[in-house]
Amino acid sequence: MQGESTTQAAAVEVINSEGLGPVLLLCEHASNHIPARYDGLGLPAEAATSHAAWDPGARALSICLSKALDAPMIASTVSRLVYDCNRPPQAPSAMPEKSELVEVPGNRNLSQNARDERARSVYVPFCEAVNAVIAQRKQKNLETLLVTVHSFTPVFFGRTRAVEIGILHDCDRRLADCMLDQAKSLPQRRIERNAPYGPDDGVTHSLVLHGIHNGLPNVMIEVRNDLLQTDTDVLAISNELLQLFRPAIAQLTHGGQN
Amino acid sequence: MQGESTTQAAAVEVINSEGLGPVLLLCEHASNHIPARYDGLGLPAEAATSHAAWDPGARALSICLSKALDAPMIASTVSRLVYDCNRPPQAPSAMPEKSELVEVPGNRNLSQNARDERARSVYVPFCEAVNAVIAQRKQKNLETLLVTVHSFTPVFFGRTRAVEIGILHDCDRRLADCMLDQAKSLPQRRIERNAPYGPDDGVTHSLVLHGIHNGLPNVMIEVRNDLLQTDTDVLAISNELLQLFRPAIAQLTHGGQN
Repeated sequence: MQGESTTQAAAVEVINSEGLGPVLLLCEHASNHIPARYDGLGLPAEAATSHAAWDPGARALSICLSKALDAPMIASTVSRLVYDCNRPPQAPSAMPEKSELVEVPGNRNLSQNARDERARSVYVPFCEAVNAVIAQRKQKNLETLLVTVHSFTPVFFGRTRAVEIGILHDCDRRLADCMLDQAKSLPQRRIERNAPYGPDDGVTHSLVLHGIHNGLPNVMIEVRNDLLQTDTDVLAISNELLQLFRPAIAQLTHGGQN
Repeated sequence: MQGESTTQAAAVEVINSEGLGPVLLLCEHASNHIPARYDGLGLPAEAATSHAAWDPGARALSICLSKALDAPMIASTVSRLVYDCNRPPQAPSAMPEKSELVEVPGNRNLSQNARDERARSVYVPFCEAVNAVIAQRKQKNLETLLVTVHSFTPVFFGRTRAVEIGILHDCDRRLADCMLDQAKSLPQRRIERNAPYGPDDGVTHSLVLHGIHNGLPNVMIEVRNDLLQTDTDVLAISNELLQLFRPAIAQLTHGGQN
């Protein structure tokens, strides 16, 4: 199922693109890969593998969900420090000079040309892959719920985060509401709406661009990354999330496959 | 063109329902009519005809725009003090006990049964009419931009409002951005984004429910009601708004009729 197709010099991978399930998964921060032409962005090794560069566990979690739901999955194969596919090109945070405590020398004073090259080579292929899968599903009359999969660090600017799973939404709350209605089925888990951050922090770009502009119910899932350290962890969280997803899917679709 | 069809004991009117233009107009606060069964909500006459009860000029402006754009138009025929069709049933402001300075005795301590009756007889028919027109347009492969038309009072809680035309949006900014890009063509007019209020004030219910959930670009137009006092005023504002609408329509549709 993996690696079914990659496009545009492998800036994006599309897994299970023909999946017939009702969910389309996006994973913008799946990879910490920095293409050679960016010289590692001048980062020390520990920063280049830290949560600043990617969302550890998010890709593995997406793959579990993709298998369970027969969901197409689209993931960036490039570090968000090169270009954050969950940000529009005009946002400074699309190519951040600093991410939490990590300075990114290779992003300092980027010229417009350099910014354009990043957008063209990383963001545009990602968006095109999403557009293509959505168009293909429309043509097949498949209903689509858009889900973006992320992980977050347990400690941010020195503060510990108690929330374990965040269910994030912008002004289309349909899917988030249905999932939060099911949170009681996971009493051991701390699940919160729009946490550890929310739409005012600029994190709903993909939801708006790919979900809301297409009328697709949508949600962003954030899992604390200490819960995604091993394959066993990932499978356990995937199964927990499915307890939220399956009833929500049943409520929001007209008899999908899952 | 007017009064082409009314449904559900005339709680809603649909004008030019077969219009082929790319805009669908909603006018939730078109009327100050209080059906007899509500005993005038206990309001003094001046309150029952004030901007608390409706948006003066909004219906006339919608009709002008409907004619110019060959747009279907759906308007409530019941005062927003009975039920505000731009609010969900669970919102207290759907049947307000107080609106600015106006106390509404007939809305005090409404039972759940009374609230349900209002929603069933005013809000549901409005929503059903909108759903029907959108479904019909989808079937005909007509592109649709959703526009809600409102007016606001020049003085609110004793404060004068300088803004003349508000272009309001929630998390789908496409249509608002295109229209605001054109605001320079009306240099005499004070036009502002999300003014005199915005999405955080709960005014984007129709935009979200009918626009965003259907993937339709959408915008809420607010015109200061002192600019809509005569037919001549209304026509002039309609023509100004068309200067914003026509380029926006051209940008957002693939060769519509207008």
